[in-house]
Amino acid sequence: MLKIDKMKYTPINLKSKLSKFSEHWSPKVIAEMNDYQFKLVKLQGDFVWHSHPDTDEAFIVLDGAMTIEFRDDSVGLSSGEMFLVPKCVEHKPRADNECKIMGIEPKGVVNTGNSGGELTAENDVWI
Amino acid sequence: MLKIDKMKYTPINLKSKLSKFSEHWSPKVIAEMNDYQFKLVKLQGDFVWHSHPDTDEAFIVLDGAMTIEFRDDSVGLSSGEMFLVPKCVEHKPRADNECKIMGIEPKGVVNTGNSGGELTAENDVWI
Repeated sequence: MLKIDKMKYTPINLKSKLSKFSEHWSPKVIAEMNDYQFKLVKLQGDFVWHSHPDTDEAFIVLDGAMTIEFRDDSVGLSSGEMFLVPKCVEHKPRADNECKIMGIEPKGVVNTGNSGGELTAENDVWI
Repeated sequence: MLKIDKMKYTPINLKSKLSKFSEHWSPKVIAEMNDYQFKLVKLQGDFVWHSHPDTDEAFIVLDGAMTIEFRDDSVGLSSGEMFLVPKCVEHKPRADNECKIMGIEPKGVVNTGNSGGELTAENDVWI
């Protein structure tokens, strides 16, 4: 009982959580806020073009740099920068070198959105 | 028109946004995701005991250190750490030295929750 009570007040350390996995494009849930989830993801290479018909999606870069391509432009993000991809907008994340990010979106959102394919990750995996 | 299009693809730089204000306990909105808002706050000293009856609240420490006191314990958070305060749970943030955080919660949530008082900040102020 004491152990559970103590765990309740444990900070979520982002670096520590990031050290627990190495796969790319495989979101790991670290926290929930109402029906939203905070997910850590390591990116490298090109993801697939996709969109999320029902929700915006937040990207916060924790380490490294990434680009989010859009059909009409792109945005480059470095550590300490964030971007909100509006719902329904097609986008393709990519990272030349490994980039560590936190994504925030409603629980149940699939990483490849409406596109599917082999990069579709198992959902709701906690670390 | 070109200018608006370009602004659409501007990254949100957290340090740059933090440099735009100095007041303590005065959340500034930097982004919206569906009906949620991302807010930057500079903390120093003691806040008031309060709770939010309708929502959890996310704290992400960007720089410095803070403590969130609860009626039965407390949690210390440093840069790179986060914590989710469950809805209805009374808490009191404090910071001995200035601490810079990002908070995430539904649009319309008041910083002092159910408690009011002189630290109640104007809501929905963007920087």
